[in-house]
Amino acid sequence: MLKSDVVIIGGSAAGVTAAISCKRRNPGKTVTLIRREQQVLIPCGIPYIFGTLGTPQKNLIPDTMLSGIDVNLVIDTVKEINREKKIVYTENGNDINFDKLIIATGSTPALFPIPGIDKENVFVVKKDISYLQAMLGKLNQARDIIILGGGFIGAEFADECKKGRDNNVTIIEKMPHCLQLAFDIEFCTEAESVLSGRGIKIITNQTVTGILGDKKVTAVQLENGERINADAVIISTGVVPNTELAQKAGLKISASTGAISVDRYMRVRNDNDILACGDCAVKVSYFNGIPVKTWLASIATHEARLAAANVFETRYSGLGTVGVFSTQIGDLAIGAAGLIEKQARENGYNVVIGTAKAPSKHPGGIPGAVPTMVKLIFSKNDGVLLGGEASGGACVGELINVISACIQHQMTAYEVSLFQMGTHPMLCASPIAYQIVNAAEDAVMKLK
Amino acid sequence: MLKSDVVIIGGSAAGVTAAISCKRRNPGKTVTLIRREQQVLIPCGIPYIFGTLGTPQKNLIPDTMLSGIDVNLVIDTVKEINREKKIVYTENGNDINFDKLIIATGSTPALFPIPGIDKENVFVVKKDISYLQAMLGKLNQARDIIILGGGFIGAEFADECKKGRDNNVTIIEKMPHCLQLAFDIEFCTEAESVLSGRGIKIITNQTVTGILGDKKVTAVQLENGERINADAVIISTGVVPNTELAQKAGLKISASTGAISVDRYMRVRNDNDILACGDCAVKVSYFNGIPVKTWLASIATHEARLAAANVFETRYSGLGTVGVFSTQIGDLAIGAAGLIEKQARENGYNVVIGTAKAPSKHPGGIPGAVPTMVKLIFSKNDGVLLGGEASGGACVGELINVISACIQHQMTAYEVSLFQMGTHPMLCASPIAYQIVNAAEDAVMKLK
Repeated sequence: MLKSDVVIIGGSAAGVTAAISCKRRNPGKTVTLIRREQQVLIPCGIPYIFGTLGTPQKNLIPDTMLSGIDVNLVIDTVKEINREKKIVYTENGNDINFDKLIIATGSTPALFPIPGIDKENVFVVKKDISYLQAMLGKLNQARDIIILGGGFIGAEFADECKKGRDNNVTIIEKMPHCLQLAFDIEFCTEAESVLSGRGIKIITNQTVTGILGDKKVTAVQLENGERINADAVIISTGVVPNTELAQKAGLKISASTGAISVDRYMRVRNDNDILACGDCAVKVSYFNGIPVKTWLASIATHEARLAAANVFETRYSGLGTVGVFSTQIGDLAIGAAGLIEKQARENGYNVVIGTAKAPSKHPGGIPGAVPTMVKLIFSKNDGVLLGGEASGGACVGELINVISACIQHQMTAYEVSLFQMGTHPMLCASPIAYQIVNAAEDAVMKLK
Repeated sequence: MLKSDVVIIGGSAAGVTAAISCKRRNPGKTVTLIRREQQVLIPCGIPYIFGTLGTPQKNLIPDTMLSGIDVNLVIDTVKEINREKKIVYTENGNDINFDKLIIATGSTPALFPIPGIDKENVFVVKKDISYLQAMLGKLNQARDIIILGGGFIGAEFADECKKGRDNNVTIIEKMPHCLQLAFDIEFCTEAESVLSGRGIKIITNQTVTGILGDKKVTAVQLENGERINADAVIISTGVVPNTELAQKAGLKISASTGAISVDRYMRVRNDNDILACGDCAVKVSYFNGIPVKTWLASIATHEARLAAANVFETRYSGLGTVGVFSTQIGDLAIGAAGLIEKQARENGYNVVIGTAKAPSKHPGGIPGAVPTMVKLIFSKNDGVLLGGEASGGACVGELINVISACIQHQMTAYEVSLFQMGTHPMLCASPIAYQIVNAAEDAVMKLK
């Protein structure tokens, strides 16, 4: 029987990060990572296979990340976790005895019961190379592509499916706006107008009641009676945690999210020798401590680092999920950190909003400079930063992380208004107009 | 006699920001900005006039920043500050009575006494449109351009002077490396290799002992005896604060920096109705409280906001200058925040270094992804972040501001290793490899 001090199940963002951090934090321990896939896809890169990258083979997590640091890699499927014997049993007999186990089994696309969902050319966003390769072939031939769900994945797929193809792409979203769970309305409409400008049709406030066709999809039926032609349908309506193994092993599952119940150390609530991280684990809000359904690779890696640090001794208590997103639609980068205004109000905060807009480079005539907007949300009670949103140039990708750093340190509008940043003509807004600082100064005056 | 609650002298980064913040923080007060120039150049954009922008007219601070917020703009030259009468006298009779005065007179290129410095086609980096327009004409005709000083401005000028021109550009730097005051050696050599790769010649460990030629420069003489042909020479060897007016008014000047002595509220030490900010004011290090000669537009705007907030009542005490820089040389973006390793050691810290490198986008095959490196410097005593450096893709511009936020909140390596960031394939490194977090995790293990 093989033995490993730490066994990790799952080889995507959480699993790989857990392996790397485990070896760093516990250099004397043996670490084994078991995964099903020969090659692992970068989860957030999947939409880009269909346009920018052109093939799943260009979207892989390199195994050199593991081989370079003495992690044992086992490619096999775990069929059972025996908690009493502390053994993981696999389909091909690579059974391993563990001291500590980290479950990082991820998530699977959520499927809701639409009649006709099993027809040919109806796709979900599976983390499976051969599935995506086949899907790519079909999408290349499709004239009419319909995307169900206008969240991040849906919007990114729509954008990528338009690249280099003469086709009709339609997003169908049940809420009033695309991206509405992540952004306040003004940012949603900005993203929608970029999508529309790229020739993508957006239908909101509508659900699909049926997928029509014989063997293959030919159209979708909307709730309002309308039918829309479709050669291909992509379903991007969220994910559900993969907890089958954990459930079979009797580990506690959260009723509200369907994910494995963990404490702030990432240990499973009813077995402290087992930890869980990433999409399969419960995450609670940094703000109200209530479970949130925010499945992001960046959060998964944060939790994996926390789990790896706490695997043998308790080193850190997690603060909960801040929630930091970014994406790019066409040339518009857009991001959010913490609570958006709507969520802050729903949480009961009396909020003060500060906004500022400036070109992403300075002067505005520098090639590539685009208007870049920052909105900051503060608590009126004490001026503490609760969240922020940004849209504009590619600098938004890290601008939103500056905001995240300020949130994680509970900076007030007063402090943010005096934040010391660096700026450069080719890289940032002007120091006079720097958006985060000016948005904070705007808010300061409303705090009186 | 005109009267204004606040009078600001100077219309560059500090003056304009002070005016904007004054109106925001003190909406009932009248604010007047007096400046000499009809049009004001963006200071950090000046090198880009010579390549990317092509004309000084594309590098102006727009006056709409002031006109939109009811700031009185007076274009005139202040000849005297009368502290007793609280009057500013100008050359064209726009004398103004003030309640509070903010001096933001900036800096002038430092000139050291090289024989021949007054020859034709020897230029300094003056914030003067017609001077720069003439300089541009001469540089367009020059075959051999020599740049004295390989700091930020020198490196940026070298890079820009190469753009679209068939010429020879040589940097002469007295220290062993270009950019050595701002970066540790490994980052200096990275920038130097980009400069060299662009055909720019770099001569280090050398000073210029004479500028040769009849009326016009024809060559420079090096300390080692070598002569180098030159049609044009650009001197970028630092700046000195403009304090003539302040000195004449009897305001206290710092002996070590030549700048106006201010307290942590930005008030002049010997006259609390007068404040100073930007290059003309003393700035002290966030770390050791000792005056630093760091003249940056971003620092100037921070100080201007502090001065504007404190002009009528004391609202904030400045924490001192963290020092956050960034630039772009060729396609390499490079930045630093806080103390570099060398400075940290000179300050007496026992330091721990963490490093991490990853592509600026993910997967590495996304167009435009380039290797991007982060180095973080922590105090071994308590793990607190002292500084950071980054080089690579354009994301470095804001990445360095994330590091600055972490420094300003005295985050430890432990905390930074669990920082919650957002990542996106088109905008950032992979969450597994995110450089700031991985550099911190690297350092954590060395803190034991």
